[in-house]
Parts: sequence; C-alpha cells; structure tokens
Amino acid sequence: MKKARIIQGGTVVTAGSVSVADIRIEDGVIAAIGRSLDATGAETVDAAGLYVFPGGIDPHTHLDMPFGGTVTADDFESGTIAAAFGGTTTILDFCLTERGRPLGDAVAAWHAKAEGKAVIDYGFHLMVADAGEQALAELPELIEREGITSLKVFMAYKNVFQADDGTLYRTLQLAREEGALVMVHAENGDVIERLVSEALERGDTEPIWHALTRPPQLEGEATGRAAELAGLAGAPLYVVHVTCAEAVERIAAARARGLRVYGETCPQYLTLDISALERPDFEGAKYVWSPPLREAWHQTALWNALSSGTLQALGSDQCSFHFKGQKELGRGDFSKIPNGGPTIEDRFSLLFSEGVAKGRIDLQRFVELSATNAAKLFGLFPRKGTIAVGSDADLVLFDPSATRTLSARDHHLRVDYSAFEGMEVQGEPVSVLVRGEFVVRDKQFVGQAGSGRYLKRSRFGLGGSLALPAVPIGGSPS
Amino acid sequence: MKKARIIQGGTVVTAGSVSVADIRIEDGVIAAIGRSLDATGAETVDAAGLYVFPGGIDPHTHLDMPFGGTVTADDFESGTIAAAFGGTTTILDFCLTERGRPLGDAVAAWHAKAEGKAVIDYGFHLMVADAGEQALAELPELIEREGITSLKVFMAYKNVFQADDGTLYRTLQLAREEGALVMVHAENGDVIERLVSEALERGDTEPIWHALTRPPQLEGEATGRAAELAGLAGAPLYVVHVTCAEAVERIAAARARGLRVYGETCPQYLTLDISALERPDFEGAKYVWSPPLREAWHQTALWNALSSGTLQALGSDQCSFHFKGQKELGRGDFSKIPNGGPTIEDRFSLLFSEGVAKGRIDLQRFVELSATNAAKLFGLFPRKGTIAVGSDADLVLFDPSATRTLSARDHHLRVDYSAFEGMEVQGEPVSVLVRGEFVVRDKQFVGQAGSGRYLKRSRFGLGGSLALPAVPIGGSPS
Amino acid sequence: MKKARIIQGGTVVTAGSVSVADIRIEDGVIAAIGRSLDATGAETVDAAGLYVFPGGIDPHTHLDMPFGGTVTADDFESGTIAAAFGGTTTILDFCLTERGRPLGDAVAAWHAKAEGKAVIDYGFHLMVADAGEQALAELPELIEREGITSLKVFMAYKNVFQADDGTLYRTLQLAREEGALVMVHAENGDVIERLVSEALERGDTEPIWHALTRPPQLEGEATGRAAELAGLAGAPLYVVHVTCAEAVERIAAARARGLRVYGETCPQYLTLDISALERPDFEGAKYVWSPPLREAWHQTALWNALSSGTLQALGSDQCSFHFKGQKELGRGDFSKIPNGGPTIEDRFSLLFSEGVAKGRIDLQRFVELSATNAAKLFGLFPRKGTIAVGSDADLVLFDPSATRTLSARDHHLRVDYSAFEGMEVQGEPVSVLVRGEFVVRDKQFVGQAGSGRYLKRSRFGLGGSLALPAVPIGGSPS
Amino acid sequence: MKKARIIQGGTVVTAGSVSVADIRIEDGVIAAIGRSLDATGAETVDAAGLYVFPGGIDPHTHLDMPFGGTVTADDFESGTIAAAFGGTTTILDFCLTERGRPLGDAVAAWHAKAEGKAVIDYGFHLMVADAGEQALAELPELIEREGITSLKVFMAYKNVFQADDGTLYRTLQLAREEGALVMVHAENGDVIERLVSEALERGDTEPIWHALTRPPQLEGEATGRAAELAGLAGAPLYVVHVTCAEAVERIAAARARGLRVYGETCPQYLTLDISALERPDFEGAKYVWSPPLREAWHQTALWNALSSGTLQALGSDQCSFHFKGQKELGRGDFSKIPNGGPTIEDRFSLLFSEGVAKGRIDLQRFVELSATNAAKLFGLFPRKGTIAVGSDADLVLFDPSATRTLSARDHHLRVDYSAFEGMEVQGEPVSVLVRGEFVVRDKQFVGQAGSGRYLKRSRFGLGGSLALPAVPIGGSPS
Repeated sequence: MKKARIIQGGTVVTAGSVSVADIRIEDGVIAAIGRSLDATGAETVDAAGLYVFPGGIDPHTHLDMPFGGTVTADDFESGTIAAAFGGTTTILDFCLTERGRPLGDAVAAWHAKAEGKAVIDYGFHLMVADAGEQALAELPELIEREGITSLKVFMAYKNVFQADDGTLYRTLQLAREEGALVMVHAENGDVIERLVSEALERGDTEPIWHALTRPPQLEGEATGRAAELAGLAGAPLYVVHVTCAEAVERIAAARARGLRVYGETCPQYLTLDISALERPDFEGAKYVWSPPLREAWHQTALWNALSSGTLQALGSDQCSFHFKGQKELGRGDFSKIPNGGPTIEDRFSLLFSEGVAKGRIDLQRFVELSATNAAKLFGLFPRKGTIAVGSDADLVLFDPSATRTLSARDHHLRVDYSAFEGMEVQGEPVSVLVRGEFVVRDKQFVGQAGSGRYLKRSRFGLGGSLALPAVPIGGSPS
Repeated sequence: MKKARIIQGGTVVTAGSVSVADIRIEDGVIAAIGRSLDATGAETVDAAGLYVFPGGIDPHTHLDMPFGGTVTADDFESGTIAAAFGGTTTILDFCLTERGRPLGDAVAAWHAKAEGKAVIDYGFHLMVADAGEQALAELPELIEREGITSLKVFMAYKNVFQADDGTLYRTLQLAREEGALVMVHAENGDVIERLVSEALERGDTEPIWHALTRPPQLEGEATGRAAELAGLAGAPLYVVHVTCAEAVERIAAARARGLRVYGETCPQYLTLDISALERPDFEGAKYVWSPPLREAWHQTALWNALSSGTLQALGSDQCSFHFKGQKELGRGDFSKIPNGGPTIEDRFSLLFSEGVAKGRIDLQRFVELSATNAAKLFGLFPRKGTIAVGSDADLVLFDPSATRTLSARDHHLRVDYSAFEGMEVQGEPVSVLVRGEFVVRDKQFVGQAGSGRYLKRSRFGLGGSLALPAVPIGGSPS
Repeated sequence: MKKARIIQGGTVVTAGSVSVADIRIEDGVIAAIGRSLDATGAETVDAAGLYVFPGGIDPHTHLDMPFGGTVTADDFESGTIAAAFGGTTTILDFCLTERGRPLGDAVAAWHAKAEGKAVIDYGFHLMVADAGEQALAELPELIEREGITSLKVFMAYKNVFQADDGTLYRTLQLAREEGALVMVHAENGDVIERLVSEALERGDTEPIWHALTRPPQLEGEATGRAAELAGLAGAPLYVVHVTCAEAVERIAAARARGLRVYGETCPQYLTLDISALERPDFEGAKYVWSPPLREAWHQTALWNALSSGTLQALGSDQCSFHFKGQKELGRGDFSKIPNGGPTIEDRFSLLFSEGVAKGRIDLQRFVELSATNAAKLFGLFPRKGTIAVGSDADLVLFDPSATRTLSARDHHLRVDYSAFEGMEVQGEPVSVLVRGEFVVRDKQFVGQAGSGRYLKRSRFGLGGSLALPAVPIGGSPS
Repeated sequence: MKKARIIQGGTVVTAGSVSVADIRIEDGVIAAIGRSLDATGAETVDAAGLYVFPGGIDPHTHLDMPFGGTVTADDFESGTIAAAFGGTTTILDFCLTERGRPLGDAVAAWHAKAEGKAVIDYGFHLMVADAGEQALAELPELIEREGITSLKVFMAYKNVFQADDGTLYRTLQLAREEGALVMVHAENGDVIERLVSEALERGDTEPIWHALTRPPQLEGEATGRAAELAGLAGAPLYVVHVTCAEAVERIAAARARGLRVYGETCPQYLTLDISALERPDFEGAKYVWSPPLREAWHQTALWNALSSGTLQALGSDQCSFHFKGQKELGRGDFSKIPNGGPTIEDRFSLLFSEGVAKGRIDLQRFVELSATNAAKLFGLFPRKGTIAVGSDADLVLFDPSATRTLSARDHHLRVDYSAFEGMEVQGEPVSVLVRGEFVVRDKQFVGQAGSGRYLKRSRFGLGGSLALPAVPIGGSPS
C-alpha cells in the first residue's frame, strides 16, 4: 500500500457542491473529504486558495491519426501530456476503421498507438462506416470485451468516412439494443461535396472557402436528420462539435419532444469565428475545422445552449497538423488542408475563463461540462467525473486568479502553432493528479509515458446516464 | 461542543456524485465524508443499504394561511412535521401581504406563525400585490434585513391577489436591481374571472368546472407573457406550479433565447389528472388546485421538461383544507372551494418513485430537483441542498427498496384526506436530520416544535445560482 | 338610366386573373368585360397601357378624430379626396366610443362626420372599451341595423382606450355569436405606461423615446395573447398594424394551429424605420405612430408575411396631425405627441412600387392585399374588392411606368407634411372611378363632396370570408 | 371562324371573384363576360343554378406508367376522359427517365403516349435521377424547346428513382438559373429501405406494413431537408403529395423564413387514413400510396395548411393499378404492391365537397387550390387557371346541390376499383369544356381522343408565379 496523500484546504468543487476541505487519497482513489483531516503518515499538498476540480474529461480527441496521406502532429504521448497540463485527466479518442477490414483490427491498432505513451487515462470510440453483416456481428462482442460503448457515424466526408442514412439508422438500432451511444458528425456531406467541387472549379481555392462551402444550414439539416432517426430508432444520440444556432435549435427541439439527444461544442467555436480563415499568408489554414468556424453571433447561441442545458459537454476535437508542411498541403486547394487544430490543452481553461470568469456559467455547471456529463454519457461515472469517496483521485488544482496569455511558445504539444495564440485567459491549472499520482506538479511535468490506463466503459445508462436510472445501492466503485 | 455523529456506510448521493461512504457530523455541519471514518467518541448510525440524500428543499408551501374566510388545516407545526417525515428539511413559505398595509407587518406576522412551531428550517417569499411607492421603498430594506430574496406576483385571482402587468414589470426591475428572484403564478386572471362567472350563470357549479374554466391555454399565455416581461426587464423569473405543455413550451423558448427563466412543477401535476375532479360525492373538490389538474398527456410534457432541464425544481404547493367543513364550502359553487391540497409530505417520495424508480431521471437529477436547484435559486447554496464539508447536515436516510401505499391513515398532516390516497410508491425516508439532529428516526418523530430556524437567504446569483458565477474562493460556509 | 361607359383596352387585374379587356359600366356596376365590346352609345375611356385594378379598400383610417384635446388635420372630405387620388375607393373608419355613453350615439356622431363630405364609399368599425351589460345589449342591434360587423378592442392606451383581457374575451365571444370580426391594437399597455413614466422621470423626452418605450416584444406578447383568447373563444381575430417579426411569428403560429387569425400591416412599417424618430429639430415627431416604427430588419419579416400569406391586408392607419401646432404639442414630452400620420394617399402606390415593381409580390397578390381580402374580411365582397360582373365599378386606372417623388407639395391632404417625403415610387393612379363615376380623372379631382355612400356590411363569413363558405348560388349582388 | 358559344346565367367563380354572368367564347378563348350578353348568332348553353369554375388543373398524374414490371391500368385516353368527367381540363404528367439514357428520349416517349389519346390539355414534368454532365447539358435545351419548366427529384425509392442530396442540390441550382421549379418526393429512402427489409425479414408482409415502414417522421425529415437545400440554392421548391403534420410544419417554417417553398396534398390524404390498409382479404393493397395514408388526425393539419396558405395545390397523384392481377402482385410481400391509386376523377369534387360544402374553404380558395395556383406555379397562367378575357375557355359547369355516392360502378377509369368507394359527395360536374369545346356535356362524353393539346409552359415566375412579378402590360395571351 502506497503512502496516503492529502490535498489540504482547497475549495473543492463538484457538479453538486462547493466546500473548503481536505481530500485524502489512498491507492489512487479518494478515501475521505473533510476539514482538517488527520494527516499523520500522509504526504500533504497545500491547495489553499486553489479550486480543486475533478480532472477534465475530453470526450473528443484524434491523436496519432492518419488523414489524407499525413498523420497528426501529436500522438498519445505529446497529446496526453498537453491534456494533463491543461487539466484533463481522461480522453476518449476516435478509433478509425476501414471498410472491409475487421473492426477488431482497428481497435488493436489503436491500443498499440496508446500503450506505452499515454500519461492520462483513455478510452476509445469506434467509428462505424457501414453497418454490413460483418460489422453487425462484430460490434456486440467489441462492446462487451473492450468496453467500447460509443460508436461514431459520419454524415460528411463523402467517399471517405461518410455513412448513408441507412447505416446510421441501423447503427442506432444496434446501439439501443447493446446499450451504446451513437455519436454523429452532422453535416450534409453530399451537398458539401458539390459546393466544394464548384468552388474549386470557379478557382475559389483560399482557406475561407472551406467555411463558405460548409454553411451552417447543412449542419443544422444533418443534426435534425440524425435526431429524427434517433427518435425513430428509440436510441440516444450525441452530436459532436456543434457550431451553430441552426444545430442548437434542432437539438433543443428534439429534447423538448423527450428524445435523448445530447450535444457537445468545442472551445474553438466559443472563441473564434469565420474571420480567422481570412488571415493572410495562408494562416487561415490554421483555422480549418469541420464543421468550420462560424460568424461570431453563433457564439451566443452556443453559450445559451451550454448554460440552459441544451448542450452537455465540451470536447476539444484535438486534431493537430503542423502549419509547415501539413496545413500547407492545401495551398492552392483548400480541400487538401488537413482538417483540425490543437485544442486539447486549452479546452478546460477556456471554459473556465470564458464561462465562469465572465459569468456565463457557475462553478457546478463548469464541472458538469468539463467532466461530469461526459463521464455519465460515456460510462465512466462515478469512477470519473467527480470528487467523491471511492472515485478515482483525478484532480486539478486550479488557480482562478492567475492570468496568462495562450501561445505556442508555452504549450506542450508538438504542433507548430496555437489555435488560440495571444488569447488572455483567467485561471490556470497548477497541479494535476491521475488516480492520485501527480502528472503535473507546480506546472512541471512529473508523469511518465505509459502510465495512463485504458478504460473499459459501462454501457449507456448504467452507472449514471443523464436521463436514466443511476447506480444501484452498493454500486459505487469503491 | 456536542458529540460528533457518524452516518455509516450509506450510499451518499449529491447532484454530482454517488459513493458509499461515512459522513461525520460536528456542530450540525458535515465535517467529513470518507470510507471507514474513525468513529472514536462519536455516535454511529448505520445507513448500510440506504441512500443518503441532501435534505429536500420545498420551495413552495402555504402553512397557516388564511384563504376565503378560512385558514389552512395545517400550520408550521403539523406542516413541518409532515415535511420532515417526507424527507424535506427546508421549506420556503409564502408570506401574503395586504394592499395598503406595510409589507413589514406581513413579514412579522409570518415570523409569528413559524416561531416555536417549525421543526425544520424555513424561509419566506414575499408577495407583491402592487408596486406602489410604499412597497418600492420598503422592499430593498426587507430584502437586506430579512434575507427575503424572492418576490411573488400573482397574475390570477382577480380582485384578490392579482397584480397587473405594470406591477409585475416594476417588480422585475426592482428584483434585478436588488438581486431578488421574481416568482409568478401564471394564469390569465381576467379571462378566468369571465369564464367562472359564465359557468356559474349557466349553473355549471360542480368541481370539474374549476378545471374547465382555467384552460391550459391561459396558463401558457400568462407564462409566455411573464417571460417576455422578464426578458425586457433583464431580470430572472421563476414560474411556480407549471402544469401543462403550453407553459413548458414558453419556458423552453425563453431559455433558448438566453433568458434566465426557471420553472417548477408539483407532484400532483405529475401523478393526477383532470378526471379526479369528476369523482362523485363532491370528492372532486379534494383535487381543486390552481392551476388545475390537466389531461393526463401533459404529464409526459412535464417529465420531459424535468429530465431535459426546462424545469428546475419540484415544489409541493402544500395548501391543505379539510374536506369536511372547508372544501365543502364550495358545494353548489365550485368557485368557493378553497384551492389547494396536502402534498408536502409526499413530494420527495413521489419524485423518487415516479422519477428514479421508473427510469425517468437519474439519482443526480433527483437530488437537483428535490433540493440542489432550489438551494441555488433561492440563495441557500451551498449551505443547503448538498452533502459537502461545511454544509448543514440536513440528511435523509432513504430506503429505496421499501414499497408502501400512501394514505391519510398514515400521513402526519392534520388535514382529513390525502391527495394521493392509495398510490403505491417505491422508496421511503427512514430517518431525517436537520443540522445534524434527528427529527425523524426510524420513522418516528423525535424532533421538537420550534427547533427549525429562520433562514436569511443570499441574493440571487450569489452563492451559486444556476447561471451565474458561484462561490468565490473561500466562500464556502464552513 | 345613365349613359354606359366603357374602359377600353386596359390590362384588367383581379386577385385571380389578368387580361387585356374592355369593361362596360352601367348604373355604377360592371355590366361586361370583354374584348372589343360594342361601344355604341357609350362613353369610352382609353386605358391602353394602363392596369385596371379594383379600387383600393383601406380598412384602417381615422378621419376627423379627436385625440388628446386636438383633432386630426384631415376630415372625411380632405381624407377621402386624398384616398381617391391614391387609388382607394372605400375606407373603413374607426368609430370611437366613450365609456358610459350609448354606442349608438357614437355611431350617429360618426355618420355626421362623414355625410356630405366623403367622396368615396365608407363604413365604420366600432370601438369596444368595455363589455358591460349596456354594450352587450346594444351591440347586436347595431351590428344588424348599421351593418357594423367589425369591433375594435385596444390592448394599449391605458386609461384612455385600453380594455382589459376580460373585455377582449367577452367581445370575442359576442363577435362569434353575432358574426362580427374583432380587431385588436396589440400592445401591452400596462407595461408601456410604466416605461413611459420612467423615461419621462429620467428626462428622456425626445420623440425617439416614444419608440424605445414601446419595444416590439410588447407587441409580440399582446398579439400572442389576443390570438390565444380568440382561439379560446372560437372567434376570428384581425390584428391591426402589425409592425414586427415578434407579432408576425405569433400570427403564423396561430394560423398553423388552424385559428382564424388575420393581420394587417401599414405602408409606413414597410418603408420607414425607427431612425426616423431621431431626425433633428423635433422632426422625429412626424414619425410617431403606435406601435412605433421598428428597426429596418423587421421590414423583411413583414414582406415575407405579406407574400407567404401570414398577413392579409394593408391598412393605412391614416391619422394626420399637423407638424406645426399639433405634433409640436409633444415638445419636451414625447408622450404628448399626437400619434399617427398621413398615409391614406400613398398606401396603394407604395404597395405597388415596393411590392410588385420590386418583385416581392405578383399582381394578383397586390390586388388581394390592397382590396380583395379587406372586402372579404369586412363583409363587402363581392360588391367591392374585385372586377366582376355585377360588382361596383370601383376602378383604378394605373400607369405602372410612371415614376414620381412623393411630397407634401403634391399631396391632397390638408396636413402640413408627408410621411414619405422624397420617396421615389414606381407607378401612379391616373383615374379613379367609384360606382362608375370618375372621382379623379387624368389626375384631376372631378368628384364632389358627399357622393360617397355609407356601407352596411355583411356579417363575417357571409359573402366570402377568407376561410368560410362563400356566396351561395345566385348570391352575386347584381 | 367557328360559331361563338355563350354560357348563360351561371355563377362564375374565379380566385378573385364571384358573379352571375354570361360567358362568350370565341375561337376557344373567352371573349366576354357580362350580363345578358347579346347571343345573336351564338350557341347558348344554360348554366343557371350552376357554378362555372375554371377547369381544374391536376399537377400530378402518372398515366401509362411502367412500374415494377407492370404498367398502370389507365393511359392518356381513359385517364383524361376520367379527368374531364371530374372537372379537370389540364394535367401535368411525370415523364420518367432512365439513368444513362438521354432525357430527350424519355420526353419523346411521353409524347408518344399522349398523342392521339388525350382528350384534355397536358404538359410534362421531367424526372431527374442524377445530375451528371449529360443531364446538365440536356436540361436547358429541353426546358427551352419543350417548355418543360418543372423537374422532379425523388428522395425515396432507393435504387430505383432515388437521387442523392448532391443531385437534388445541383438540380435546384440549375432550376434557379433556368427558371424551372423543382418538385420533390420527400421521404428518406435510405431508412425506408432498412425498415422494409427488416419488416420482411420478420415476416411482416401484410399491406399495413407498407405504411408502418414509412413513418411520417421520415417524410417530415426529408421535407425539411429539401427546403433547406432549396434555401441554400436560392431556388423555389414544390413538395408533392404532402401527407402529414411533420411535413406541413417544415413547409410553414421555410415559408416564414421567406423561402419560396410550396406544397401539394392529394384527396386521398384528406379523406382516407391508415386504417384502410388493414382491410381484410388483401383489400388494404388498394390503399397503398407512397407516402402512405396516415392516422386520421393528420387530416386536420392538412386542411389547416390548405386554408391558411401553407399548401397551394391539390394533385391527384393518379396512378392506377388493377386490384386483380396488379395490386395482387404484392400478396405475401407488401413491397411488391404497385404504389398508387385512382384519384384523377374525384380530386375536384372531393375538394369541393369536403372543402367548400363543409365550410373549410371558400369558393375563391377552392378555385386557387384546384386550378389557379397550379397554373401560376407551372407556367400556364393566365392562359389556364382562371376565367378571364383571352384565357382558354376551359370551364366546368358544376351543380353544387347534387349529391352522389362515388363508386367504381360509375367512374370512367379502366381500373377495377375506386379508392373512394361509397363516399358521399356534395356537388357534381355537369359539363366540361376545353378551349371552348365540350368534352363532357350533361354528364355524357362528347369529346374525342387526341383532341387534347400539349402545353409548352412558361418559365417559373414569368406569367404569374405566386411570389414573383406578374404579366407585364399587354402580356395577356389574347
């Protein structure tokens, strides 16, 4: 048995509480929360003046991911180190599959990418590109054996990842039967393909055309379509990277009808806007995400959705490519710009700074959005996502009074730029623990590659979904 | 210093967590939560196999209230004893005012009603019938001195409680300036008065006509109107006793626009329907509430609103009148039936049974709806509404496996009938503590009249509102 | 028998047709429409190159109306002459009543104002300020005897015209029973009164504050409220002078539910915006209407509503006060500025110019909005509002290729300014006939005071309402 | 020059008028409308006591259409004879194309089907299955040469007619550029295919499963999607055979945003419901349409949409297959039941009987829905769709007092059953003229095969679309 550790005097915040207390950690889990806990024989850590938050859960990352002949600049090592610095202690990464290859091979490949590298805990979502007989046969077993209880379907990226509506519907049916949660990238890929071809034919090749060929109406449309199919299938649905009022309206309408539709937005959509794609010298390429950045007024719709409950989570959609050599592949043809950007490290802090510090959300909602809701939706609660006896001691000691300027000079990713370069934020993670061990301590990395563990996750609705029965008596993981 | 007490081995649930843990109580507040806490010198209470919930907060009661020449059957003694048996440890009662009399007199009268009687903690909302110069002068001082940070405006009960839209608007303005929350009874009183007169003129005098002269459209209309005025005034709004899809839709629409509009429903609207008013032998009079019970399909809309976040709280609207001698005043004229019913004792259990046990909401949402959200909205968080170090040790030990049948034979109110007679429920409060002291222990009353304390409450948005910044560092009440 | 008259070779337009044809007029009604009609013995009028439209029907005028101690600048003589020049051959004027005085007295007074003066035909709407016993007794008789089949209720102008919701509801009930149509001025007068008082207390006395104290939310709210009450009462409703998206949305929603809710907008709301109230030297006072001019983007919502069918008519809300001596009463206190402006003459031309010429509506929709729909809603169809055999020969010969600039220098009202000064319009009425007689010929007045006739109108839904059965066989007025 | 003909004393109804008048016809067009027209040298026809309506325009027929290895029971001869008996004088039939074959071949084939057979006038819509280079090259020429100004895209019938969203979008773009109107069959074919396969796998093979595998949500979804794409493309859209509230809501929402989205329903959706598919002895197969019949409550939504302006037209979707030998192909497999039914003959009468006679719409709206709007949307106005000087003398003499029972015994189609067997209707076409010649006279067929003419139609928005500028001066076809 390892020596106990006590985090002393912090302001402990969960989705349902705030208090000044000590936290005692034993064997990687929280053993007690109290005032002036007996520290005999324990290592003590002073947290006075700091918030102690549950470690962030980032439900949406792409590390070590191949895309268009290249591969992301960051892998499970650099990516999770950056995540940890940013206050995130768990990630859920997307395992991409290939048509015609066994899904199990893809999962094995993803395990290989993460093992020995990750410094925080991780799980996988599994992409479903077609719901043929083989996939339908394999999925139940993978869900059971691997604890992969979330499936991703793309409605865009025609001829690459895109599935048709029949596949989406069949996947929803299977998910309902197996207790999984279907996640969708909701954009109308067919029409986007047309718009992109036409733009290129016209000679409109600059980065801004990436955004102009993916208008918000096409995200709203696909979001509504996915929600409708989920309703028909009786299955829950999680819409990733919601960017616009059009999509928010569809999710709100579905929820009002009683459908279990959930949504996530990302820090870039809350803080950046379409004008970034017009930056000169091809710098606009740094800001190419799909869906794209929108006009600034959509940010208000997203904040309203976060504060009122229409959206449940914040994912980073981390997917970094170097500007030099990678983003530049799209010079002269915006459609060849690798999609994505570096966001994993700043997700947590931006939500605090723009959300709590600016009065848009309170502390409890911050914890829900950064950690608790993702834990509940993706089968990790109450092991992750909260500060409670028996839960993993994944903690962030956070200084709310610190101010700093985000910059690629200071970040911990390999990628050669920051999406948020120059942005002022209020608040900073000081130390981060995963299962009771420091990964970051006083802003220094003290973890080690490979210390992160793979997470087999519970099925949807067991262990505490947002709208289903919770832990039965004795169901706590301690 | 009193002897410490330890609640051992319960499954502790908050809005953000669930865990099996011991809870140590010192001086009425929670000192520690942990596994196998050292019990030396402390009294221990076995909670194994039980849920330990934060004590329920009932934001809507009418005890010892005069109405139409009579007075409610239950006062602060019987009412709070029943509340405690039901798992409620805090109530917020409505202080009624009279036009032309100082508001301070009404508050003094309400203090007199509660003191020496209440067995659980309590606060007051203050009714505003007109926003004349006197009231506007008096309100800021009452808010400050009494900690009465919620004001009630009636849009119905013409010529009795009803305020006009100008008064509602002025009260909203004042509330914004003073950090108070305006609560509305949202029904169009002018039209209802017409409909009631016409029904009586036609000879339609039976209880069912109470419901038929208050159609849901008039609640929806008034709800939308109040939300619109709140938006204009820039003030938050809390809609009491929402009963119907029409009102839910207005609240959802307002929230989608970013307005801080909140809503409450009541157990009777979730479990009973309009057909109850047609029970023979004038028994329908037992089910006369305003707004009235609706057609059963509205219940689905209310549950959707509770689970998806459109509604935030469950109030009882406790307002009991004996069937004999009181409800009977309306024989031959439904408009003379005293409005209201006995609900304070069953609010908490019905939400658990119909909500959690039937899979409509999870445990965390149950705690939010029964306690946490009311604490945050009404300036009591984190002192009340959660189980956290430094918070008041208001706890409910709840047996989720118990089943029972609700009946007037077993309830602890004085009133001579039960609104939920014969209803089967899953789950039962076994023991209830207020500030660490048992009020109910093993289903026996062990409290004493007058032990309940008056609660001066924080202003709206301080200490943790649903959409505003939360407790600053060090702000925990410990 | 008078000599027949033939209008030759014009392009004849109705709500359902367009054709090049001659029109033969006998005894004031249309006897034939055909090509190359035999003109023997008839006077011929060349209309080649001109549109021949049904004479415009203006459903909303205030002539010779007392307001705040003064009286409108234009009476039934100057007002109807101007109307005729503008292409309008029928007006419906509002007969204002006084509380406590017999309604019949008001009607008699209005007859006295019009007789001997009007040069075009006219009818009256009747204001209902309270629905007390006297009014309820008198109304059925007035509807029958006078053919006054439309009743006006004000939801604004507190302490002057404003009725409460009970009165509105009772009037709707009576209207349903008697076959009348209730018209509402939909603004929340209670809140407006508060906002006005506060502005004046703050010293915000300039004309712009007239608009700022009557925000569109209060029009939207009242519109939705009136629609809800109409739905409850089972009565049709006509919302006068709709100005904003908020009101349009409520009307559209009501219509989607199957309610018979109709709406009118006015030329000023389609062409002017709130910035007009900020014109220097108190000129903003010229643009004081209630509801007020809105931000320019609302115009798009109004045009969409006109073209898609949500709104049915265009009224002028003619209500002119001289700038000198009348509008100036409000210097230093915007609330004393007489509300209203001169619009009767330009209503028809502005709809053509901004609507047809700019491609927003087609010719048939132009006729519906300028004439046919008002005729159907207000019991004048098919006698008025169309060009058909047996219908009154109310015709406008209109030159679509003319362009001109609107100005007080050229208008035919007495009032000392034009609301549309300097506006370029496409199209111009050249000649106007009422019941076959020229009132304006080649842009010269050739009519005579008193030639206009009072119109007893059919009950709502008889003779061709928008949603009720039409003329039975043989029901044509010929 | 042929002898003139005068229809005497009928009650002439157009979309904008009603009057008792004579109609003089010369050379197939209307020469005059008047009272007591000089009948010297003309043939007179007595229409006293009858309505005279513009001949009905049926914008949606499938005559002589191959489908699943069989061909419709009715061709252009029997189909147009039945149409004429029913009061329809113009049809627009769908020209089906085959992938990979020139579109021009399909048009030629359709001409061959109609020539020598049709007894009323006709035009063609052209199906677009994919928008490849060949089609995009051919379409502009066909639009110009053939006057085929409406294009049909199927969102359902996967692997048969279905186009993907990219094709739909490209077609919309082309239509905007060329002045054509895109029509969509709006159902989500991908998901329907899944549902059908699953039903058949389960052994659910009865006709009712046709309806249950095509739920209204999938029509609503596709309708909304098509409207969204039309909005993006800036093109008008016409949604054929709208059946349900879900689709109506999407159309209304699109129109409220100012999009030029139009919709049609069919008599079967107004009068029949899903229960018909459960009729015993496989009779349910007679009622197999796509989209399917819905639950009866949707009829109210459709009527509201027709009366309030959300829907603009009534098409028959005539597509008849014998019960014996054709519908029976689907015994044991509902997916093999030929889709469609006989409706061309009763469309006009059912709209009158259920609409006008039951007070849901007035006479003018009846004419709009049965004729005028289709003429305007499809480039036939004012030549067709009205009764005006210079317009084609397509007339229906209609006895509103007749009552009769619809039955296959009496209809004029070849198909062996009636979709409306046993239904009572009010009103009956007595005589029908096309271009001034009787096709039906006193309920007897007096026309001749081949007398119907092909109609080259104007481009969308020229000659009188619902929302675009109308005929310029002198633009009447006389």
